[in-house]
Amino acid sequence: MKVDGKPTRTIWSAPDGNAVEIIDQRRLPHEFVTARLATPEDAARAIAEMWVRGAPLIGATAAYGVALAMRRDPSDAGLNAARALLIATRPTAINLRWALDEMASALMPIAPKARAASAFARAGEICNEDVAINSAIGDHGLKIFREAWERKGRRDRLNVLTHCNAGWLATVDWGTATAPIYKAFDSGLPVHVWVDETRPRNQGASLTAWELANHGVPHTVIVDNAGGHLMQRGRVDFCIVGTDRVTAQGDVCNKIGTYLKALAAHDTGVPFYVALPSPTIDWTVSDGLREIPIEERNPDEVTRIAGRAGDGRIESIQLTPAASPAANPAFDVTPARLVTALITEKGVCPASREGLARLFPERRVA
Amino acid sequence: MKVDGKPTRTIWSAPDGNAVEIIDQRRLPHEFVTARLATPEDAARAIAEMWVRGAPLIGATAAYGVALAMRRDPSDAGLNAARALLIATRPTAINLRWALDEMASALMPIAPKARAASAFARAGEICNEDVAINSAIGDHGLKIFREAWERKGRRDRLNVLTHCNAGWLATVDWGTATAPIYKAFDSGLPVHVWVDETRPRNQGASLTAWELANHGVPHTVIVDNAGGHLMQRGRVDFCIVGTDRVTAQGDVCNKIGTYLKALAAHDTGVPFYVALPSPTIDWTVSDGLREIPIEERNPDEVTRIAGRAGDGRIESIQLTPAASPAANPAFDVTPARLVTALITEKGVCPASREGLARLFPERRVA
Repeated sequence: MKVDGKPTRTIWSAPDGNAVEIIDQRRLPHEFVTARLATPEDAARAIAEMWVRGAPLIGATAAYGVALAMRRDPSDAGLNAARALLIATRPTAINLRWALDEMASALMPIAPKARAASAFARAGEICNEDVAINSAIGDHGLKIFREAWERKGRRDRLNVLTHCNAGWLATVDWGTATAPIYKAFDSGLPVHVWVDETRPRNQGASLTAWELANHGVPHTVIVDNAGGHLMQRGRVDFCIVGTDRVTAQGDVCNKIGTYLKALAAHDTGVPFYVALPSPTIDWTVSDGLREIPIEERNPDEVTRIAGRAGDGRIESIQLTPAASPAANPAFDVTPARLVTALITEKGVCPASREGLARLFPERRVA
Repeated sequence: MKVDGKPTRTIWSAPDGNAVEIIDQRRLPHEFVTARLATPEDAARAIAEMWVRGAPLIGATAAYGVALAMRRDPSDAGLNAARALLIATRPTAINLRWALDEMASALMPIAPKARAASAFARAGEICNEDVAINSAIGDHGLKIFREAWERKGRRDRLNVLTHCNAGWLATVDWGTATAPIYKAFDSGLPVHVWVDETRPRNQGASLTAWELANHGVPHTVIVDNAGGHLMQRGRVDFCIVGTDRVTAQGDVCNKIGTYLKALAAHDTGVPFYVALPSPTIDWTVSDGLREIPIEERNPDEVTRIAGRAGDGRIESIQLTPAASPAANPAFDVTPARLVTALITEKGVCPASREGLARLFPERRVA
């Protein structure tokens, strides 16, 4: 999407062809800085230290990390060493493993001296495939936006609420929940986005708000507490969020606090949509509440927060009394009954076993 | 309640009898500092600049402000000037007006030379009356805690969730929602409090957590997003919050985000209690959603936050991109249907017109 008016992805080949470049997302939203990754070690550091984040972008960065390794040592040993280096950065990231396996399958059958060129080409394809998936999610979601706008009688503006950052910064481009927002905006619908700040890591206030501001989409940052009130007062036409995992019966695991917004939407008659690429569906899991363990992250994310101080430095400050402990569950599960529909690259379906089965007939549901 | 092991109120007569002392709440939770108010101007500044906050404490401070004025000029003109000075600090605060009227009624009939002593005595009574009301709320609420503990089979600990600061720092002592918590803790129940940080002003993370830490009550700070998840997983036995206004049909206007917690409690079968002194009931209003206007506060409270920097200074930092606007609705309305019961100084009742009428038969409901 656009940054300073210029179409931009989160990762791209350097103009000289000897490296890839990324947005150093640690500096957002206060500074837009790009970084050059010239070695597999650079790529590993960018993943491990969260210069890049979001499952699809992590996968894309790892794929390019393998390509950078092939420039230096295209032997089988070099390929295996690159895989080991990169998988260790975030061992539980499923897209990371997938991208590394994908690169290995593409490169192993090829003579070493041809591997570097093929690797760059395959990494580029992986990026383009991600862009195509998100663009398709955007196209399917756009219909929902258009219908809502008609239903509203084309009055005022179309008020959409989102939580966390399911945006283009987490993917190569478009994002998941944001793809329909960008498509709607680009097609001239008067969309306005309520952006949940999304404590504790504030991905909404920092990343989603930054994305929307740069692309020119009207938006307003709110605290996570405010969405229910706005829905009660008719100021939200629908909600749209991303997800980390959807179960075979349509339960949605997403950033902590998603469940509260889904409850408010249900209570006030506001539709609640979840956008996802189909690999996010975990066909082996059914009851999200019983079967999905929730990651507990460092309590420091609750007790401290970083931002831009008066002198421009990024400073981290303590919010709580020194004597008070904190807890930090990172995700929650929204039961399928609270979800109006799932928006995937294959189309839109009810959040249910039957809905998913119709959209993905090839999958054998557990 | 206790601070550093010592029973403390939020306002008290100075040992020399020539002033009152307060906790400078702007410095919490990072520093415990008391301030001496020796003139009505000192009292006015403490209210206007939020050294003190919370309706009952504002009223008590204003009452002492009149007493301080009477030491200097006990004439009718002096009394009227003090009232004018103090009412201007926070013109919409209902307790402030009530306390000033109360002081005037007590002092006007008295000879000027007797007014200073009477004024200090009446201000002290106003404080004691507030303490008595909150203590009674605590006693009635304690029964609910005891019953919940028995129902739970006296296992583990009693997990209570609260939002914002309806604590002793907002009153003279005990607080409203916290009064039963302190009574339960003091009586030996193994209570543990989940403290919502309560964005944007973080009264939970700063004030409620500080109170509980100082009194020794086990507690854990969480982001506002986390409560629904904790309720889903059976980790909350009940919720208890305060309120700014309850309508004649039992709708509850309270800090933004209260509605979301009440929805989660309802969805998961967790009881949701609201504690209040009976003057908080607005018998002239029925439908809270239709009739209560919601204050929109400064967006800076959303985009910026203050805390303790590494060098100990209190620093305010920017959280959002410079180009992103924010909105800041300060309260929301929780419909009576989501409230298990109201806990008042007169007893506990259902959140309904009938429930309130039974507890307050002397009131003619609008």
